[in-house]
Amino acid sequence: MHFTSEPRLDDGVIEREFTIGEIPGILWTPEFTPIPVPLILLGHPGGLQAMRPRLVARARRAAADGIATATIELPGSGERAPLPGVEEARTDLRRALTAQRPVDDDIIDRLVLPLVERAVPEWRHTMDALLSLPDVSGPVGYSGGIISIGVRLALVEPRIKAAGLFAGSFIPRVIVEEAHRLAIPLHVLLQWDDEGNDRQAALDLFDAFGSVEKTLQANMGGHRGVPAYAGDDAARFFRRHLT
Amino acid sequence: MHFTSEPRLDDGVIEREFTIGEIPGILWTPEFTPIPVPLILLGHPGGLQAMRPRLVARARRAAADGIATATIELPGSGERAPLPGVEEARTDLRRALTAQRPVDDDIIDRLVLPLVERAVPEWRHTMDALLSLPDVSGPVGYSGGIISIGVRLALVEPRIKAAGLFAGSFIPRVIVEEAHRLAIPLHVLLQWDDEGNDRQAALDLFDAFGSVEKTLQANMGGHRGVPAYAGDDAARFFRRHLT
Repeated sequence: MHFTSEPRLDDGVIEREFTIGEIPGILWTPEFTPIPVPLILLGHPGGLQAMRPRLVARARRAAADGIATATIELPGSGERAPLPGVEEARTDLRRALTAQRPVDDDIIDRLVLPLVERAVPEWRHTMDALLSLPDVSGPVGYSGGIISIGVRLALVEPRIKAAGLFAGSFIPRVIVEEAHRLAIPLHVLLQWDDEGNDRQAALDLFDAFGSVEKTLQANMGGHRGVPAYAGDDAARFFRRHLT
Repeated sequence: MHFTSEPRLDDGVIEREFTIGEIPGILWTPEFTPIPVPLILLGHPGGLQAMRPRLVARARRAAADGIATATIELPGSGERAPLPGVEEARTDLRRALTAQRPVDDDIIDRLVLPLVERAVPEWRHTMDALLSLPDVSGPVGYSGGIISIGVRLALVEPRIKAAGLFAGSFIPRVIVEEAHRLAIPLHVLLQWDDEGNDRQAALDLFDAFGSVEKTLQANMGGHRGVPAYAGDDAARFFRRHLT
């Protein structure tokens, strides 16, 4: 892991860019909290630079609670090499949706599983590097999309103590089975009228999670319409479990 | 409206019992906030004295946010005269449930509507009396069960500016139609494994609400298993809309 920028101070967070191998990432640590601090890994749908303003907003909120945040680019997104087969699966998905045909499990597997299988070891490797810094000590949370990555990572990585997930559909069956075995506290956000997600599939996945403490928070509006107070509630969930 | 007890100071709230006509009630005002303050009407399933410890806990939380709370006994509950026909409807309901028969709309109407039709004018009359005190000024919120009472009251009473409802089933059709016409911000709690409520009926009712700002928060456990943080989130909802 190499820091590639000078630390930049910005409204309560210290921001540092890094690379880990070929993968670009960003670490935000709170300006006003004595180190070491807990850590939240910020999931996103891919495209670090485009997502950056929203990631910074989440980083600032966590920093106000004395929590560091970090993210890395997804496999196949941004400047990274495309994942073999995924673009083809995306075309097949688009075709099925346009023709209003049901989406085969096979398409979902080809679309999501290569991403999960690459991203999860990358996140774990990043955790190793981050937790060896003097700044962060854990416990660690995972926050955001892609939900299949969050589920797999939370299942295989015992250092993840709580997860805030953004409900989605297009979940491979193997991930739904893994969801049953999850036991950590979960906070699941659902946009009730999400144009890109099937509501019933999201409710079914929420039902499948094995965790004793799980909360579903559904709000009105489309995919990008998450209200500010929902972000506050998610932040409180992490404060409760990580600090 | 007559106060029937001396004001009692208890952990941040000033508690006063009252009667309005024949109906007993309790008013809690915050000890440390300059009057007048906003008001939350505390709904409950009936039986004021048995519910009292839980009502006091809700009153204390609201008082910490500078909000007064008040409640009255439900028609047919506690010391009040039984409502004609309701006991018979309850017997019919119990029979249908025991025999695992679907519950007729007719039984639900006979069970719930007499209660709604008596309780809603009583709540409004109580609001008139409370808002004429120097202590409270509005805006007013409604919090808790019985959900059909909350829906009707919020629809007919423009002084109600926000409602926190406890999702239930056994909702008369006329109330579901009224839910479509509701426009105030709503915060709806659902216990995912509520033994007394049908989950799908609760989700359908949430979907039916006409309000642009509505949040569903589902937590694990049975009817009485609402976690403490869910109470905190509901309190923040009212703080956002009433203060």
